[in-house]
Amino acid sequence: IMNGAGNLMDFLDEPFPDVSTYEDFHTIDWLREKSRDTDRHRKITSKSRESFWELVKSLLDAWSGWVVMLLIGLLSGTLAGVIDLAVDWMTDLKEGVCLSAFWYSHEQCCWTSNETTFDDRDKCPQWQKWAELMTGHSEGAGPYVLNYFLYVLWALLFSFLAVSLVRVFAPYACGSGIPEIKTILSGFIIRGYLGKWTLLIKTVTLVLAVSSGLSLGKEGPLVHVACCCGNLFCSLFSKYSKNEGKRREVLSAAAAAGVSVAFGAPIGGVLFSLEEVSYYFPLKTLWRSFFAALVAAFTLRSINPFGNSRLVLFYVEYHTPWYMAELVPFILLGVFGGLWGTLFIRANIAWCRRRKTTQLGKYPVLEVIAVTGITAVLAFPNPYTRRSTSELISELFNDCGALESSQLCDYVNNPNMSRPVDDIPDRPAGPGVYNALWQLALALIFKIVITIFTFGMKIPSGLFIPSMAVGAIAGRIVGIAVEQMAYHHHDWIIFKNWCRPGADCVTPGLYAMVGAAACLGGVTRMTVSLVVIMFELTGGLEYIVPLMAAAVTSKWVADAFGKEGIYESHIQLNGYPYLDVRDEFTHRTLATDVMRPRRNDPPLSVLTQDSTTVEDVETLIKDTDYNGFPVVVSTESERLIGFVQRRDLTLAIKNARQKQDGVVSSSVVYFTEDVPQLPATNPQPLKLRRILNLSPFTVTDHTPMETVVDIFRKLGLRQCLVTRSGRLLGIITKKDVLRHMAQMMNQDPESIMFN
Amino acid sequence: IMNGAGNLMDFLDEPFPDVSTYEDFHTIDWLREKSRDTDRHRKITSKSRESFWELVKSLLDAWSGWVVMLLIGLLSGTLAGVIDLAVDWMTDLKEGVCLSAFWYSHEQCCWTSNETTFDDRDKCPQWQKWAELMTGHSEGAGPYVLNYFLYVLWALLFSFLAVSLVRVFAPYACGSGIPEIKTILSGFIIRGYLGKWTLLIKTVTLVLAVSSGLSLGKEGPLVHVACCCGNLFCSLFSKYSKNEGKRREVLSAAAAAGVSVAFGAPIGGVLFSLEEVSYYFPLKTLWRSFFAALVAAFTLRSINPFGNSRLVLFYVEYHTPWYMAELVPFILLGVFGGLWGTLFIRANIAWCRRRKTTQLGKYPVLEVIAVTGITAVLAFPNPYTRRSTSELISELFNDCGALESSQLCDYVNNPNMSRPVDDIPDRPAGPGVYNALWQLALALIFKIVITIFTFGMKIPSGLFIPSMAVGAIAGRIVGIAVEQMAYHHHDWIIFKNWCRPGADCVTPGLYAMVGAAACLGGVTRMTVSLVVIMFELTGGLEYIVPLMAAAVTSKWVADAFGKEGIYESHIQLNGYPYLDVRDEFTHRTLATDVMRPRRNDPPLSVLTQDSTTVEDVETLIKDTDYNGFPVVVSTESERLIGFVQRRDLTLAIKNARQKQDGVVSSSVVYFTEDVPQLPATNPQPLKLRRILNLSPFTVTDHTPMETVVDIFRKLGLRQCLVTRSGRLLGIITKKDVLRHMAQMMNQDPESIMFN
Repeated sequence: IMNGAGNLMDFLDEPFPDVSTYEDFHTIDWLREKSRDTDRHRKITSKSRESFWELVKSLLDAWSGWVVMLLIGLLSGTLAGVIDLAVDWMTDLKEGVCLSAFWYSHEQCCWTSNETTFDDRDKCPQWQKWAELMTGHSEGAGPYVLNYFLYVLWALLFSFLAVSLVRVFAPYACGSGIPEIKTILSGFIIRGYLGKWTLLIKTVTLVLAVSSGLSLGKEGPLVHVACCCGNLFCSLFSKYSKNEGKRREVLSAAAAAGVSVAFGAPIGGVLFSLEEVSYYFPLKTLWRSFFAALVAAFTLRSINPFGNSRLVLFYVEYHTPWYMAELVPFILLGVFGGLWGTLFIRANIAWCRRRKTTQLGKYPVLEVIAVTGITAVLAFPNPYTRRSTSELISELFNDCGALESSQLCDYVNNPNMSRPVDDIPDRPAGPGVYNALWQLALALIFKIVITIFTFGMKIPSGLFIPSMAVGAIAGRIVGIAVEQMAYHHHDWIIFKNWCRPGADCVTPGLYAMVGAAACLGGVTRMTVSLVVIMFELTGGLEYIVPLMAAAVTSKWVADAFGKEGIYESHIQLNGYPYLDVRDEFTHRTLATDVMRPRRNDPPLSVLTQDSTTVEDVETLIKDTDYNGFPVVVSTESERLIGFVQRRDLTLAIKNARQKQDGVVSSSVVYFTEDVPQLPATNPQPLKLRRILNLSPFTVTDHTPMETVVDIFRKLGLRQCLVTRSGRLLGIITKKDVLRHMAQMMNQDPESIMFN
Repeated sequence: IMNGAGNLMDFLDEPFPDVSTYEDFHTIDWLREKSRDTDRHRKITSKSRESFWELVKSLLDAWSGWVVMLLIGLLSGTLAGVIDLAVDWMTDLKEGVCLSAFWYSHEQCCWTSNETTFDDRDKCPQWQKWAELMTGHSEGAGPYVLNYFLYVLWALLFSFLAVSLVRVFAPYACGSGIPEIKTILSGFIIRGYLGKWTLLIKTVTLVLAVSSGLSLGKEGPLVHVACCCGNLFCSLFSKYSKNEGKRREVLSAAAAAGVSVAFGAPIGGVLFSLEEVSYYFPLKTLWRSFFAALVAAFTLRSINPFGNSRLVLFYVEYHTPWYMAELVPFILLGVFGGLWGTLFIRANIAWCRRRKTTQLGKYPVLEVIAVTGITAVLAFPNPYTRRSTSELISELFNDCGALESSQLCDYVNNPNMSRPVDDIPDRPAGPGVYNALWQLALALIFKIVITIFTFGMKIPSGLFIPSMAVGAIAGRIVGIAVEQMAYHHHDWIIFKNWCRPGADCVTPGLYAMVGAAACLGGVTRMTVSLVVIMFELTGGLEYIVPLMAAAVTSKWVADAFGKEGIYESHIQLNGYPYLDVRDEFTHRTLATDVMRPRRNDPPLSVLTQDSTTVEDVETLIKDTDYNGFPVVVSTESERLIGFVQRRDLTLAIKNARQKQDGVVSSSVVYFTEDVPQLPATNPQPLKLRRILNLSPFTVTDHTPMETVVDIFRKLGLRQCLVTRSGRLLGIITKKDVLRHMAQMMNQDPESIMFN
């Protein structure tokens, strides 16, 4: 960081001034960051030949990337484990408490109890519901109402704590964080978004928010938490802390680690980071991301929060293959997922816009309390909404084994059956299944409605789990329907070929999984990473075709209604300057249509190489708020020679006024290589060539805008100068590009500003 | 394609002339291809509003990408299946023949025979070795020698056929093809490299080459075959056949399909294409690549060439976990893999260079015959080299079950043991194992030496399988050593903690797999895709840490000796103009140091906007062989206004001379917007603004070369003009950049030319 005249004097042997810091809510210049890193690297390499100590330092520097990855993996894995354990405990706390040790969750409580058998592991004397503990009774209306009341009360308490902590300590800790992380990775600066406070508060409030029973998940916020870890460890190494470009490489990898711990899917995490989150994903970070993702996954596994040594959140194992005819319901689930995605995005964005623009946004605490209250009151009576959403999904994904005791597996057993445990033929559904179907249908409607209002509130809230829950419920219902149809109508032509009586043809759990993938795909528009995450959950290529069919249908259906996924929609809603890599710009406009100054605007503010005075420069800086100024040969010829950053200019003049004798307001600023011999009466000139960027990026006025957009995206430019046969005509900044793209899509161009 | 005056007249409403074809061994201009595709897309979109038929056509166009992917998947899957079947049959043909049907391979022959039991499935009366068939005896020295002789004879016949077919019909069908595909995907044109003949001949000769028993694999060539399929199907759709950029998107996906069928690893294939082969991998092709890879994998599975309904080449299932202490041998295997990679690359490149520069290269048929002869003579006596390499790897990967009858599983059984089949404790090795160890050690040396001489001969030859074989042999040897140590020295401190007597601690098969991954990594320097391919083979995250530890060690060790993998080395050896995405350019040179003309060169050949005559242009075209010429305002001011392609210029002048009256040698060529009113006596002017590219890419002379290299890579430029304050100074082409990079790395710059 340039902080004194000493540095200014050294500039002669540096191609670029080392002024690194960007202002808040500004865009970084990737090319410049990259060339600063190369300079740093060159310096270290040349120094490393000087002494042994420098060689060691250079090796440490080369290894720092791996060290950062290791630390990110360890910390984010640990945090994910702690969050899982805490959520488990607090979710159960809403229902009751463990007498042997209050810090045990229901499951842990019953583990430690020796009196339980496998069959009713959920019932053990140590675990008491609140009503039982207080009144001594566990049956009847009274205890039920008391339990109900306390459940709602705990939920309100948790969510109130969560929203208050967020409001007071870290306003950036709310939401899923993925839209902002996408924006940050594309080169935008939001100070404090990945700070230590955000990390701490987000971790704590995430536990509270999930435990409160709201319809939200921890997967998106875990990506934010992992990125905060990444940012934290960046500050340990100047290689990353002082270079915004390198920092973003680390953050990409951290996002991969976040998804890796969220689902236990390291490969899926890397692909998620590549496909969904990252902007610049140099191949060399692929390997590092993978490393971070693996370390995180194994750290989580050694903490073993689910108590089953499984890496994955939902481990499933199916015993029967799928049949071609089943593709029809799978594709229907894909259509459902696409429609759900569209509905959710439209409704959620409309509601969030209302929150932004009306009185509603002024009472975030009240909103959270209200939504939690409604959620808790409606959720308690239905066993499928009362429990935590991940447990619900886990049950829906599971195939009904012989030992399964849940209501969903209440099939009429054939007493003559003597098959192995894992190959049970299709059976007619018992009353429990029909009962469960009704409850699931109600749960589906409830989840659909409440999630729309929940996502976007001022608490940490992820979308993966609620989306998957919607899909899993719908999928399970369809699965049971198909199963019963196949059982009762073996002779129908569609079943005849593959479903003999007494065979196990249909796996309703697989339908739930396909439905979950379809709904998640509809909302996020993930494709490959979605399939890979699901593949890592099932661990077999067997079921990849159903998943792909559903995912691709869902994406096509949803894309037909609108190209943007939920994260892009939220980026737009918040007006972040995000230049999507995937948007195709197909209009025929030229650079000359986009550049400023426009036809009737005042001319471009430029500096001349040898006729501007210090006072002129200072006036220009005061009167305008541009980030930099082009330097031309003279105002007549307008031939471009370079570009000077506002920040560098301000600092250089301030320094010169303080340290350099004879520099006064009427001193002439020289950007030329040689300064002519001036008469002694003239004030001393100010030489500023060293802060001049001699290689500004230029395009001609005839360049098609699609090419300009491409250049901005691929090179990560901040601005670009427009010339015609060497004469400077104007300037295009990233915001001009975004504004133009919005205009071309008939959107309000002024919405494309951070606000 | 511009082929008449009619088109020339239409140019006014086209921003770029539609001259698409590049010459052979030239580099494409990605930006231009992209903007041509956008134009095409715009035209179709605007037309689609006109009529229903046009709408259908536009929908067909939008779907053509998926159709191409489907076709690629189907064809490459089918070809892979056919190749597998044919290789199986012909490999066995070297040993004997099936009496019931000569087109059955050994395994198929014994399947159809009902007399076999599970135990000796390899011995069935229908299958007869040649000696048995001819002489009636199967034992003794005579039949052995006869079998030996016929084995060598068949091998010689197969390889002679392969090399002759390649030489006569398709010289491009030799080698693995991956270096060339990398170069083509980076934007180079090699006509015929992906043509129909190459496809046909490569498929046939690949079968012959693999069957001949040479130390080569079919995996690399399968990528080439899949890319040929991709190219074939591109020609069905003008969207892809007329646009070199779009075509390369399809080829990227085809490469993924190739790896997918080679290993049965669709995700690994996509990552391989992304990490290793592709240059521009837009995210939208990720999904399509995945689709193509999956279709290919499932087509292969439905052909079921291995007869086991498995997708993967080497299916393994281990029953015991690994222990931390085992990381030491795994890392040692990684070191071995890195050393093998270095040795192989150095030796192979040296041998290939010798082949190129000496007499040796003139007798490719003789070379192939000689190497095949040596291979066959040395391979026959050793059972581990006699069989096909994939079978060898498969056996080495496998854990010794209770039913395994191979020599490698000849352990001394504990008679008191009554454990389940898949949980056999470590046992002392029997004489068979020690015998096998010796034979494996000999096989290892043989494979190492012969592979160096085999890869690069004028037949299709892949490197994956031989590399994996070397690693698998080494790994298995180490694995057995560790296993026996653990058995005999339970009390050693390193074993004490995890290996109780009577437990199954060490899985030698896992060591073989880790060794294979390490050796493959050392040679190709693949990282993530390697681990993912291996992960798909085992299907469990359990063993990903050993694989990663070995892969990363191997890469680090190999990188310490030289950054380039085998493919990059061959690209360099052949002098392809390939700008590696991963090479960091860290030198401090500027654009001015690289641009032409150099200090003492004649000035740059330029055209002026309004003072060049037709004759001048024709002379310039005749005297130079540049691809294009900058157009400036005048030779005095040298202000750049555009760039004109040589090809366009030639065509336009030829057309004008033929079709346009009054255009003679002394006509003035105008690149300006308006042509001044000329006196009637002057010859008619020739207006050529329509072929002028008004947005040539420019950088200033002070631009650091690292930025220029970055721009060339990311935007896929062909050339870039260098200016200083609007004045044209020179030009930098892709070859100049490559030459400069070679110079900076102290290599011979002239080697960086296609030769």
